Amino acid sequence: MNYKLAIITLLILMIPTLGSSQDNSDKNQGFFPAETNQLGKQYPMVNADGIVRARITAPDANYVKLDIGGVKYDMVKDQDGMWSGQSAPQDEGFHYYQLNIDGASVNDPGSKSYYGAGRQGSGIEIPAHDQDIYAMKKVPHGKVTQKFYFSEITKTWRDCFIYTPANYHLDLDARYPVLYLQHGSFEDQTGWSSQGKANLILDNLIAAGKAVPFIVVMENGYASRPAAEADSNRPPSAFEDVMLEEVIPMIDAEYRTLKDREHRAIAGLSMGANQTMRIFMNNLDKFASYGGFSGTSNYPSSEAINPATFLNGAFKDGAAVDQKSDVFFLSLGTKEPNPFPGSVGAFKNMLDKQGIPYTFYESPGTAHEWQTWRRSLHEFAQLIFK
Amino acid sequence: MNYKLAIITLLILMIPTLGSSQDNSDKNQGFFPAETNQLGKQYPMVNADGIVRARITAPDANYVKLDIGGVKYDMVKDQDGMWSGQSAPQDEGFHYYQLNIDGASVNDPGSKSYYGAGRQGSGIEIPAHDQDIYAMKKVPHGKVTQKFYFSEITKTWRDCFIYTPANYHLDLDARYPVLYLQHGSFEDQTGWSSQGKANLILDNLIAAGKAVPFIVVMENGYASRPAAEADSNRPPSAFEDVMLEEVIPMIDAEYRTLKDREHRAIAGLSMGANQTMRIFMNNLDKFASYGGFSGTSNYPSSEAINPATFLNGAFKDGAAVDQKSDVFFLSLGTKEPNPFPGSVGAFKNMLDKQGIPYTFYESPGTAHEWQTWRRSLHEFAQLIFK
Repeated sequence: MNYKLAIITLLILMIPTLGSSQDNSDKNQGFFPAETNQLGKQYPMVNADGIVRARITAPDANYVKLDIGGVKYDMVKDQDGMWSGQSAPQDEGFHYYQLNIDGASVNDPGSKSYYGAGRQGSGIEIPAHDQDIYAMKKVPHGKVTQKFYFSEITKTWRDCFIYTPANYHLDLDARYPVLYLQHGSFEDQTGWSSQGKANLILDNLIAAGKAVPFIVVMENGYASRPAAEADSNRPPSAFEDVMLEEVIPMIDAEYRTLKDREHRAIAGLSMGANQTMRIFMNNLDKFASYGGFSGTSNYPSSEAINPATFLNGAFKDGAAVDQKSDVFFLSLGTKEPNPFPGSVGAFKNMLDKQGIPYTFYESPGTAHEWQTWRRSLHEFAQLIFK
Repeated sequence: MNYKLAIITLLILMIPTLGSSQDNSDKNQGFFPAETNQLGKQYPMVNADGIVRARITAPDANYVKLDIGGVKYDMVKDQDGMWSGQSAPQDEGFHYYQLNIDGASVNDPGSKSYYGAGRQGSGIEIPAHDQDIYAMKKVPHGKVTQKFYFSEITKTWRDCFIYTPANYHLDLDARYPVLYLQHGSFEDQTGWSSQGKANLILDNLIAAGKAVPFIVVMENGYASRPAAEADSNRPPSAFEDVMLEEVIPMIDAEYRTLKDREHRAIAGLSMGANQTMRIFMNNLDKFASYGGFSGTSNYPSSEAINPATFLNGAFKDGAAVDQKSDVFFLSLGTKEPNPFPGSVGAFKNMLDKQGIPYTFYESPGTAHEWQTWRRSLHEFAQLIFK
């Protein structure tokens, strides 16, 4: 509690991470502490091949496993009760993971916590060849703000995160376009500015003049009406109504936005791509650009889409859709599992048939994970509001 | 991944927490899910006596303990491999805790994560008789913003959190006072707006007309110069310099602040009280009010303070200090352990001797924990900038 003692202790704890990475790298056979580690924690470590090394002290455990990428790797105990183990090489980018101690699935005490896979748990960053796009650089940085509001639709308190670009505070007459950007299933409104690094991606693009400065609103895609108001004739999710009736008016009232459709875009990943495509197609008077990262509204079907009936015929008149879409963007990782390639492929075939132009981006060597979505945002952000 | 399925699954997961608490309470013998639980998690639970009940599935564990308040409580396993256990009654308010599985100290997967005690780990909220002061109410809510900046003093990226009151966005000509508010040892800049609920405390006070609207800046109290610049003649912490040379000018540049000393206050808890008292007394030209929650700069000594030498004689001229201090506020919980009561007591004796008036607040029935500091902020916020 003595603050000098606390600072000295903290400095000692930090020495490993403060030391030159070359030294650590040599001592640790090329392994270094993950960027996602808690302050002062040496483990977990990663190496250039994407192998994850974990450690935890559990002297009385019968077994400990490193649980990452759908595989549980056995760890082994040393004489001091420290368990160590490592994974096969992981794809570059961010992954959720956990440790399993005698059947209990728990956070690795070495890792910071991230909300995904339906829990606030461990995550690990595998350095990527293109990590420069979301690196923390000496450029002007925007801010990320948490806004609480009571939804009269869900009758619950909700919150969203709002990115404002670096110079937002400078010219109080300037107004900005807005991107509404959604997470995937079993994730929440924290995902894009935490593991997604949306703020850093935009800071870097804006500083380089590759994207125009815009606001990003990150909401929670889960929204339901109170049980008492359940109605089998209405969609199970109230998200579309919350977005259109509550979030957008609130953002337009509290931020210096440009309120016309040309300056409003909507995008999402996976479940968020599905949700936002419906919102976009049902509200072409409100949005001019759409981004669907690793997802489309025909999910999970890979069958040919009939534009006469799909989304109530929203794509029937291809020319009209094209005329209303400044940017229509789709993306996938090259390693995405079924049904994503088939489903997005069927959707693209439909667009082709209807003569609707779109941009398709493929993230090399990544699956249905955040590295695909970081890159997708990086591409999409350079196209919109221009 | 199917979004309808995901929503339905989430709704099912949420049913327990959506049910009436009376029903749950009866079924669970007066125990109910803690407010600090992860989405949809039933456990840990608490009851009106402040007893914490934890559960975790660990079929192959030899033992599991609930580790809270410095005591490890044995848990017992049922035939399905589920361990259950409960604590003695805990004080009202927020507490850090963890589970111990076969010697591994880990987060409870039921709890959200909070940074404190030097780790991002579990925390539990015990309902307090005065929880109304930080309840989420239908009043206008301020926002909490994360701001990243590169410190030229520490040569590292740092971030701080800024609370802006509810109507900050409405009148772009309005300017606001600023409170710089610091966390304690082994905590960080996230503490006050997370477990501290500073934003909700201020939202409620401002809505009730009991506090004037002001901005709050929450920084990280740990700041060190690069190792290469270490100099035994300089204080080990660079925090004072970061605050005065970097943070305050940045906030005054980026927010609509009132920049005179009468509209700037500084406060902190424990280590933060110690740090901010030094900053306040060394910079009476920059601040007019000080709040020391559970801490003073004579910590950990309980001996009589000699004003001729303490803090280089900063309190020597009592009349001058009084003339410069609009509010000089100290607080303690009635259950704080040594050395806090003795140390703060010795400090108060010195103020009395020097004829320096101050406000002293005692938090009933709480120790060196967040409930003491939430209440302290609630009191202090009503005094400043008036």
